[in-house]
Order: sequence, then structure tokens, then C-alpha cells
Amino acid sequence: MMTAPPIVLATDFGLADAYVGMMRGVILGINPAASVIDLTHGIGPQDIRHGAVALADSCRYFPSGSIFVAVVDPGVGTERAAILLETPDARFLAPDNGLLTLVCRQYDAAFGDRDTAGASAVPDGCRVRRLTNPDYWRHPVSATFHGRDVFAPAAAHLSLGVSPDDLGAAAAEIMALALPIPRPDGNTVRGQVIYADAFGNLITDITADILAGMDTAALTVSIAGHRIAGLSRTFHDPPGAGRRALLGSHGRLEIVAVDGSAAAQLGVGGGAAVTLTAPV
Amino acid sequence: MMTAPPIVLATDFGLADAYVGMMRGVILGINPAASVIDLTHGIGPQDIRHGAVALADSCRYFPSGSIFVAVVDPGVGTERAAILLETPDARFLAPDNGLLTLVCRQYDAAFGDRDTAGASAVPDGCRVRRLTNPDYWRHPVSATFHGRDVFAPAAAHLSLGVSPDDLGAAAAEIMALALPIPRPDGNTVRGQVIYADAFGNLITDITADILAGMDTAALTVSIAGHRIAGLSRTFHDPPGAGRRALLGSHGRLEIVAVDGSAAAQLGVGGGAAVTLTAPV
Amino acid sequence: MMTAPPIVLATDFGLADAYVGMMRGVILGINPAASVIDLTHGIGPQDIRHGAVALADSCRYFPSGSIFVAVVDPGVGTERAAILLETPDARFLAPDNGLLTLVCRQYDAAFGDRDTAGASAVPDGCRVRRLTNPDYWRHPVSATFHGRDVFAPAAAHLSLGVSPDDLGAAAAEIMALALPIPRPDGNTVRGQVIYADAFGNLITDITADILAGMDTAALTVSIAGHRIAGLSRTFHDPPGAGRRALLGSHGRLEIVAVDGSAAAQLGVGGGAAVTLTAPV
Repeated sequence: MMTAPPIVLATDFGLADAYVGMMRGVILGINPAASVIDLTHGIGPQDIRHGAVALADSCRYFPSGSIFVAVVDPGVGTERAAILLETPDARFLAPDNGLLTLVCRQYDAAFGDRDTAGASAVPDGCRVRRLTNPDYWRHPVSATFHGRDVFAPAAAHLSLGVSPDDLGAAAAEIMALALPIPRPDGNTVRGQVIYADAFGNLITDITADILAGMDTAALTVSIAGHRIAGLSRTFHDPPGAGRRALLGSHGRLEIVAVDGSAAAQLGVGGGAAVTLTAPV
Repeated sequence: MMTAPPIVLATDFGLADAYVGMMRGVILGINPAASVIDLTHGIGPQDIRHGAVALADSCRYFPSGSIFVAVVDPGVGTERAAILLETPDARFLAPDNGLLTLVCRQYDAAFGDRDTAGASAVPDGCRVRRLTNPDYWRHPVSATFHGRDVFAPAAAHLSLGVSPDDLGAAAAEIMALALPIPRPDGNTVRGQVIYADAFGNLITDITADILAGMDTAALTVSIAGHRIAGLSRTFHDPPGAGRRALLGSHGRLEIVAVDGSAAAQLGVGGGAAVTLTAPV
Repeated sequence: MMTAPPIVLATDFGLADAYVGMMRGVILGINPAASVIDLTHGIGPQDIRHGAVALADSCRYFPSGSIFVAVVDPGVGTERAAILLETPDARFLAPDNGLLTLVCRQYDAAFGDRDTAGASAVPDGCRVRRLTNPDYWRHPVSATFHGRDVFAPAAAHLSLGVSPDDLGAAAAEIMALALPIPRPDGNTVRGQVIYADAFGNLITDITADILAGMDTAALTVSIAGHRIAGLSRTFHDPPGAGRRALLGSHGRLEIVAVDGSAAAQLGVGGGAAVTLTAPV
């Protein structure tokens, strides 16, 4: 017996309320055999950039064909579209507000590498549909909770084998956030913090490929007026307390504090500037 | 192959400790094939009214026949009964302390519409049994954790097809909280906040049917000395910051703050008075 | 059809980030039919003692053969070993840092009853293997997230029927924390708080078997300069507000505050001394 791919939920709803629970119920009401799992519900409220990074950094760990339901949706009830993005690896149901920017970058290296947000061409090999067919919504559709009434039902129907073509009209463009790729400028790379995780680790937009070829032991990392010399391999390299910069499990430069919160110690969060400097 | 209905957990235990995990383990130990999902574990500690609203507002989103395990149980270890409520739509295992008041109201519109709490007749079409048969408990039964030792095992046995009649004796009454239905008095409706969700949205006891037939655009909503003119359709109606009153995804009047917490801004939570005033 | 035992996750990662979600994805990528459930992700950050107690107190509630993935791992990336412990009842994947001390004590009553931490003989009837076979890791292995790259894949492969012998070499020793068993000294038993749960209940190292044979109604419990007379059976014994000492649902002495947090009221947490005094 084939096991169907899971439906994976990622939202900024938190788990304190019943919102996520209702989405689970709606999915099981349509497909009682669906496997529904949580990626995270701790994305910063309405923080689309945080969501874009969390989703793109995590989706590679899920089975091929997984159906992601990603809801960080400050514009719910406005004219923003609801979409399905199909990539060669997975399917993503989300509001069309840039939340899928870094998923798209996995198929188009320049996607979202821009200074202002805006609609962009769908990457080659991917397809986008707008969820315009009300036959696949839950009715009545709330003006404030499309996660439950639009995205969850679409995921459940997809998991039952409904064709993406039935969900709505194809679109040639998808929204991109402005997430410019940090690039070396002389001996310097300027990036920024995207978000702090629950441990206060500062997750940045400087990825492993940007660091490739640099002498990481010789780098200086500057943030909020503080400097860290060299990149560590683990929290314990070197042993002892203090702050470290390292290439974290996300494949991103992270600033961490051993036995503490780097975010609290430095008083920074998403948006803070991070500068790498190589010896001249 | 038929897929069995899920067992749905709703408690005030939070997810920081292993209490909910133990309940999951007990259920799987009895029925390894059970589908166990979480509605919420963020009900306010010992807040039966919050639980009553969260449960009733959410249960309609789950498949028919779902088995709800609802545990907000300040009286655990006392003489309060443990019960099974069967409705035409679902089954509910809970302490008999009023937690099922608003589920019952879905079958008897006057249920709990009273000024003092107390035992009430079971709604027509529903049945109640007390979980008095120790064969379906987990032993030894802790004096402080019936969620694990009484309710979870009962749910697992039900999911295996055990007859409700085997769980214990039928009862003709079930506890009702005092949750009087707000009604128009001249040009005014007086209600109250039941709880604040994690975003600080204030969820009230004024439901969509109470508002039916009123000119909602002309209403004034008063709470904690503040006034909000008219009901909005979404958070962005009208655009801009500030507070809104709207009919939320629960089908209830909510007071929300765009980009903030209405609960924090107004300094109120469960129990706060909310008044709707129509033009004379 | 046999239902495979569940994979049970217990970590200190919290649920705010996607770390646990990634572990779920990795498991389902290897075994799409795996049943993955959460015991808790709220173990105090890097608090191995808390984890040791939560795991040992909870594992008995899960089906025989369950595969526990326990990750409280301050030494990740150092030379600490990653291990599989097989007991007659379940399997445990964990860093070899003492996290399994109290699971081992269920098979060797003296396990961890010592004043300094250190390697100890594996209890009779149990077996330990080190997860040294890279064929069962996820690659590349992050230096900071073995939960995702070492422990989760091992659990998934075990759930598919891979032999424990294939995962790595047998070991004769396993790390034990220093968790001396409180013993009566004259009319006194001296123990300590292990952790405070989310309600502020103080969970101690004084277990039911230590109390067996004592006249609990006549005991005095002393903590942080306060005294509680006698052990209660429930929170409501006697009725009214105030603090109680009782044998909690964990089978441990707990100090609780009715309608409040004992931890906050007493200003204590893990490590605080607790003394029982019997009448002379």
C-alpha cells in the first residue's frame, strides 16, 4: 500500500488557540486518512520574511510530494490571491504575499534578489494556480480565516488526488519579497538578521554558499557594535561561555550565545545589520 | 477500508509538560491505530467558560463521530462526575462541570441560558453516561490526573468499538454553566468577553445570530470606556491602524487591534462588559 | 494488520521553531507510514536532569516497543556518543549524557544513585549500541543538530525493522547522572526539586516508594523556609487556598499551590532542598 505524502502545516497562529486544531479538523473531514503534521506555528505574527526563511530552510527535510499549507497572512480578506505553487519537489498552498520567495529561489537563484517587493515570473519547472474555484473551499468562507476555509480544504482535496488544474486558473507570476542576496564588496559582506529563534539565536540571510571559498577562520563578524572573531564549528568551539558565529543547522550564518540568548544580549532581532569582514 | 474517526484532545494543560504526551501514549497503548489530534491545549488554566466556548466553536469543523476528550478539570479528585455526552454529531468525554454547556446549546437553544450554574436536562437527541465502570479506567487511577487515567482510556476503548453503554450508567442531567444569552433591551445588547486569544483578540458571547437583522454598520460597540463605530468585515476595513469590532471566524463578535493586542490596549480579558448600541 | 509502535519525540527544542518539524519530516521521508507523536518539547533548555525525570516518568504510559527519540544535548558536536538503549519495554535514542539515567533505574534500582556523574554498567536485561554507522545518518550531518541528522533517521530505520546491531557497536557502559536516592536519616528525608512544571508545581526526587510505610498525614514538608503539614490526596484536600504537598500523578512528591504557582510563591525551582520530617 502506498502511503500518501503528508500535509504539513506552517503558520503564525501559535498553538495556544484552537485555530490550528480547526484546520486539522477540516482536513480530516475531507480526507479522513490524511497524515497532517506540523512544521511550526511559531512564525512571528505577520512576519512574512520569517515565514519565507523557515519554510525554505525546512521543506527539503520532508518527503517528495509533501503538501505544505503555509499561512502568514496579514492581508487575509483583501484582494491578495490564494495560490498553489507546484515545484519539482513539493506543493505549497499559501497567500500570494511573498511567503514562497525563498522556496522559489531554490529553482531560480535570482528570485527575490531585488530591492523592492513585487510580482515576478514563476521559476522554470514550477507552476502556480490561483485557488479561485469555490467548489474546493469550505463554506461559508470567513473573511479572516482562509487557513481554515480556503487553504486547508484545498490541501485535503489535493491529498485525495484532485488535479491542481481543478483548483483554479494558472498564473504566470508570483509575489517576491525584497530579499537581496548579500554579496562580497571588497573584503566585506553585508547581510542582516532575519529572525531570532526561541533560544535567541540570530538567523541571518548569509547562507553557506555565500561563505564558500572564504577563509572563515579569519573572518570578523560585526553586529550591534560587537565583534566575533572567526566562525566556530559548534557551540563549544572554543570551549567556554561567550558569543559565537557559526554556520547553523539551517545552512545560514547564526550568531549564538553559549548558555544564553544572543538576541537578548545584543538587543537585536529581525532586520539587524550583520557584517563579515575578511582580512585585507 | 473505513478510517475511524479521530480522537481530539482539548485541555488546559499547555504543551510545555508531558501531560498531553502521556494521554497520547495511553490511547495508543489501548488502540495502536487510533488517530489522535490536538484541538488545543491552551485553554486558560481551570477556565471552564473559555473551554466551553473553544470546544463548541471548534467541534463543527471535525468529522462526524469524532471523539473529543475535553479536560478542564479544577475539581479532579472530588465528587464531580466524569461523563460521556453523545450528540447526533460527535462524542465528548469530559468532567461534568459545565464544560459541555455550549455543545449542549447546539441541540437545545436555551441550554445554559440561566443566571446560576446547575444540573440541567440532557438535550433531546443527546445521551449522557457516567464513566463509572472501572474496567475502562487505567489503574492505578491518580487522584489528580483523570485525563490520563479515566478520559483517555475511555476514548481509546470507544474508538475500538466498545459500546457507550458499557462505560457506565445513563444520566438524565448534565451540568450547565450560567451563560445567559445576550438579548436586545431597547436599542442595547449587553454581553461580555469570554476570553482573549493569543493575539489579544477579545472573543465575546455575542454571536452571529444575535446580530442577525441589526444594522451592523450603524452600531456602536462600547468596551472598557472605549467606543468603536460600526462592525468591520476584516482587519483592514477600514485600512489603517486602530481597533475594530467584527464578526470573527468563530461566529462571534470580536474586538481586535490592528497590529496589536486589544486585550493589552484596553486592559481587559474574560468577564469584561461589552455593549452594543443601535441608533434610536 | 499489525500497527507498528510509535516514534515518540522528547526534546528541549520548544515548539516555537521548526526544529521539531524538521525531525518529523526526516522520519516520514525514511518511513512514510511511521506514527510520530510528541511526548514533550518543553524540557528546560539543556536541563538533562529535567529530561531524565520527564522521560522515565512518562515512558511507562506508551505501548511496548515504542521508539523514544530523546534530545537534550548540550554537548552536540563534541565527543559525547549517540546511543540506542534497548530495554525489555522500549527503545531509546539519545545522546550519552545521562538523559537515560532514570530509565535505567527502572531495571537497576541503584543506577545513578551516586554523588558524581560517570559511566556505569548497562543494567541487566538492557543493551546499548553506539550510533556509529553513518549509513543510518542523514547527510550532511550538522555539527549542531543531531536530533535531525542522527537520532531521527535512526528511529525511522528502526521502525522499518532495521536491526539494532546494524546501527553501531555494542557498549558495556552508559552515562549516569548523579541522582542519589533520598533515604530516611533518623526521622528526616532530604530530597530536592527536579523541576517546576508549567503550572508552577514543584516536582521532587522523593518518589512513592520512598514514602511507602511512612505515616504521611503526620509528616511535615519543609521547603524554602516554609512548612506544609501532612500530605494531601488532591488539590482540594483540605478545601481552600494555600499550598499543598501531595503524591502527584508522576508518583513523586509535589509541592503545589491551589490557584497559583508554588514555584513563584516560594521563589524556587530545580535544585531547591525539600525536607520531610516525621514526628519523633
